[in-house]
Amino acid sequence: MSADTFHDLFIDELKDIYNAENQLLKALPKMAKAAATGELRAGFLDHLEQTKGHVERLQKIFENLGKKPTGKTCKAMQGLVAEGAEAIEENEEGVVRDVQLIGAAQRVEHYEIAAYGTVIAMAKLMGHSEEADLLQETLDEEGATDKKLTSLSKTVNKAAFKEAPGM
Amino acid sequence: MSADTFHDLFIDELKDIYNAENQLLKALPKMAKAAATGELRAGFLDHLEQTKGHVERLQKIFENLGKKPTGKTCKAMQGLVAEGAEAIEENEEGVVRDVQLIGAAQRVEHYEIAAYGTVIAMAKLMGHSEEADLLQETLDEEGATDKKLTSLSKTVNKAAFKEAPGM
Repeated sequence: MSADTFHDLFIDELKDIYNAENQLLKALPKMAKAAATGELRAGFLDHLEQTKGHVERLQKIFENLGKKPTGKTCKAMQGLVAEGAEAIEENEEGVVRDVQLIGAAQRVEHYEIAAYGTVIAMAKLMGHSEEADLLQETLDEEGATDKKLTSLSKTVNKAAFKEAPGM
Repeated sequence: MSADTFHDLFIDELKDIYNAENQLLKALPKMAKAAATGELRAGFLDHLEQTKGHVERLQKIFENLGKKPTGKTCKAMQGLVAEGAEAIEENEEGVVRDVQLIGAAQRVEHYEIAAYGTVIAMAKLMGHSEEADLLQETLDEEGATDKKLTSLSKTVNKAAFKEAPGM
């Protein structure tokens, strides 16, 4: 899909993010089911609800711009989701696997933080201020989720290291 | 590859990052060659040199821990690199494509920021303080690269929007 203009590229980047968020909608219930720590499971389910909101905001933006959100597969998110799935398949349920799930989830959050940062800068430059505000709301939520995961990782890391240090 | 203990998982995560950095070593020269903006090209080449240092630090850590760095493919980095390659293949050289290259590069940086954050927390908890310090040096460089890209994106975005607004 070629993007010859700044506006084309903006639409293309939004399609990439829309596809990524939809991939995440399918992955998060599996991550939640796989989590052994209750707080992590609840966190994944909360983020699933948030992600539904992110998809709706993107739909609103595509509607505003008179464009369709389909037609792009986000290969990076495919890889990120595959890493989470690998963690689930290859390891037994427990706190050690939870450490890995948190690591996978934070990589996803950072992907989104970078991606939303790019489109917000583009939207502002083009004067799409309503769209920039909607995207900023999502970016703020992704940032908050990443911080929550960092905080949760402290307890989960300690529990995993206590249970199975391996050294 | 199953990781039953905290230490196993730490090694596994380091292997993932080692593979990711090596994929990046191959991708960065292509990104540099594709960049139309001189400052961006120079930035990619600088980061290539830094990345060689990141690989060396990881080799040192594996040596310290008496482990081999091989045996893992980072699927997320495969996806991230594929997105950068797609941008190069599908679009003509120019400032609009540079905007896309910066976006792809920032996603890569954020992947690494998340990944190094995870292993640093693990290393500290296990008392691997020399390793944690080495990993922190790399994390600081990844963070600085991301900030440089954000700053560069401001000029490149403006140039691309001026040349081909598409709206």
